[in-house]
Amino acid sequence: MKDFIVIGHKAVTAPFSLNDLPGAAGRMDILCRCVNAALFLSHDLRRDVRVHLVLKGEPAPPKLVRFDGAAVRYLSPDERSAASLIKKALEKNAQDFWTESMPGVSIRKGDFGDLLRELNKKIIYLREDGEDIRGKELGESPDGFLFVLGDHMGLTGDEEKIIEGYEHEIVSAGPLSLHADHCIIILHNEMDRAEKHI
Amino acid sequence: MKDFIVIGHKAVTAPFSLNDLPGAAGRMDILCRCVNAALFLSHDLRRDVRVHLVLKGEPAPPKLVRFDGAAVRYLSPDERSAASLIKKALEKNAQDFWTESMPGVSIRKGDFGDLLRELNKKIIYLREDGEDIRGKELGESPDGFLFVLGDHMGLTGDEEKIIEGYEHEIVSAGPLSLHADHCIIILHNEMDRAEKHI
Repeated sequence: MKDFIVIGHKAVTAPFSLNDLPGAAGRMDILCRCVNAALFLSHDLRRDVRVHLVLKGEPAPPKLVRFDGAAVRYLSPDERSAASLIKKALEKNAQDFWTESMPGVSIRKGDFGDLLRELNKKIIYLREDGEDIRGKELGESPDGFLFVLGDHMGLTGDEEKIIEGYEHEIVSAGPLSLHADHCIIILHNEMDRAEKHI
Repeated sequence: MKDFIVIGHKAVTAPFSLNDLPGAAGRMDILCRCVNAALFLSHDLRRDVRVHLVLKGEPAPPKLVRFDGAAVRYLSPDERSAASLIKKALEKNAQDFWTESMPGVSIRKGDFGDLLRELNKKIIYLREDGEDIRGKELGESPDGFLFVLGDHMGLTGDEEKIIEGYEHEIVSAGPLSLHADHCIIILHNEMDRAEKHI
């Protein structure tokens, strides 16, 4: 299982208009592109991937939304499609446990720390000054992988402290500073190659 | 200069609604994501990149829309932002020569063949059965690079024939079949690494 966590510091926690994802929805466009990057192959979905979105914007933070590649349906590659599923999840009355809002999409109340506690595995934290991902061993891991990425604001000091409570490494996807969804594409490419030994 | 050509076989050639890019606009979402993938760094644009979109859908095909990273303004990373600039370009009365519709965005009448004739350089054509991009020499080239990618339908036999009239090679971005925008991310990563010698 490959898990991706993306933290949306401004991403709203109530239903939003699909016509202004970057503005009124608090850079929800970033999270939508990460869902696309993590889950889509050309004419298929990556079934061994889950994407966890941490929504920290108003009015009712924090909330967690999860896309499960093995179960998700009604998801198209465009941003608006992922946004529509996130919006539907936010229409649910979120509890302290996961509730499925649509096939393969679930929501709960909870923060980054709750999510890490639940997943409880080694963290690969993407940061532009991290060690180069290329050369890391990404071929096999009994627990799979857990990647953590920030939005346009990166991670806060407090969030980094939470990561430090777990086994972790800090890696970068290349020599330039890239958007989170672009990093996810590169991570997948490295894992695809490692799995195929090329 | 790095040039990317993406062919949109169904992409409409008249102004369209921003609320249905995959449907009524003929998979315009694919082209918008390619614009994002080709041009965006984390808090910057790739100034040495141009993206050329070939729009082959109704009602007035073919048309070419160009985004020039050195000049473009008013472009945000979300799909709707690129779509809005494409739409504005389509509001122009397209001629047989380039007309700028917004800073860094231009439109003309013309087809894939016209564009290749104009750019007139070696083509790197992305196809899933091509040779692995990794290991190719992408560090330096006096003319830069010209990449050609298809939409969800790939390239037609006729389009491939046009490519065969030029010096070209056929490459793939990895072991799995990926969306065009995901391929662009991987191509950039390879070029970024080659330029930095890592």
